[in-house]
Amino acid sequence: MDAFYLQHAIELARHHSRSGVNGPFGALVVSHGQIVGEGWNRVVEKNDPTAHAEIVAIRAACRQLASFDLPQAVLYASCEPCPMCMAAIYWARIPKVVYACSRDDAADIGFDDARIYDQIAQPPQDRQIEMIQSLAQEGRDVFAQWCRNPRRIMY
Amino acid sequence: MDAFYLQHAIELARHHSRSGVNGPFGALVVSHGQIVGEGWNRVVEKNDPTAHAEIVAIRAACRQLASFDLPQAVLYASCEPCPMCMAAIYWARIPKVVYACSRDDAADIGFDDARIYDQIAQPPQDRQIEMIQSLAQEGRDVFAQWCRNPRRIMY
Repeated sequence: MDAFYLQHAIELARHHSRSGVNGPFGALVVSHGQIVGEGWNRVVEKNDPTAHAEIVAIRAACRQLASFDLPQAVLYASCEPCPMCMAAIYWARIPKVVYACSRDDAADIGFDDARIYDQIAQPPQDRQIEMIQSLAQEGRDVFAQWCRNPRRIMY
Repeated sequence: MDAFYLQHAIELARHHSRSGVNGPFGALVVSHGQIVGEGWNRVVEKNDPTAHAEIVAIRAACRQLASFDLPQAVLYASCEPCPMCMAAIYWARIPKVVYACSRDDAADIGFDDARIYDQIAQPPQDRQIEMIQSLAQEGRDVFAQWCRNPRRIMY
């Protein structure tokens, strides 16, 4: 069934990028043999840089299942997920990803996936983005307050 | 002004995590000396694993400015952004980040940020998540279709 669902993700990419408004990426989330979320790149249409196909599909699936994680799901993507989407997959506890083309194919048509993978692996101070740490203890104090709360919900 | 805005991000984290429903993280986006987006962790409240403080703040700022990128902005975060949020910052072309505590402080209270940084840096086949590549040429064919479209919008 993996090839069937992956083909469907590629079809979403093809169909929804035809107008040129949005990027050529599609994704879907399958849980217990059901499609529970579909997504395609909507960055330009929505003015939302986080509206990648995988993020849209994960949000739709979580809404559909009324859950903040998807530990039984498989994510299908027409291209290897970028670091944003890949980390979202970890946060959603999705155990399996099937994808078609790669970060290098995305780089070949001008997308930054491969560069961002390289950047994220660097220590914060070595990145192209300026990163400044300050007030660390104040940040930790909020963590301590949260940890003292017996009603806190871990996610 | 960095300390002022960072303090505000920490205050968002403190205030909105008090009930225990949501995680102890806050963020804001400042552009041209104006706060254009605020966010706090809403993963549990919204059943959305992508609703981290930084993602919420970036989406709000882009909505406010009707733009899919924020090349003049600074992002302030009560904790070092996780790889999902960090990659979103790259996609949004935000050039500067100021943050308080770190991924290791987050790990100390049970969050996976540091582990996900380690995982994302691995080649796909070496991750704890099963990753399978297939139908690569079909994925590339969608890219080729998109590249032939003179009306395509790069983002």
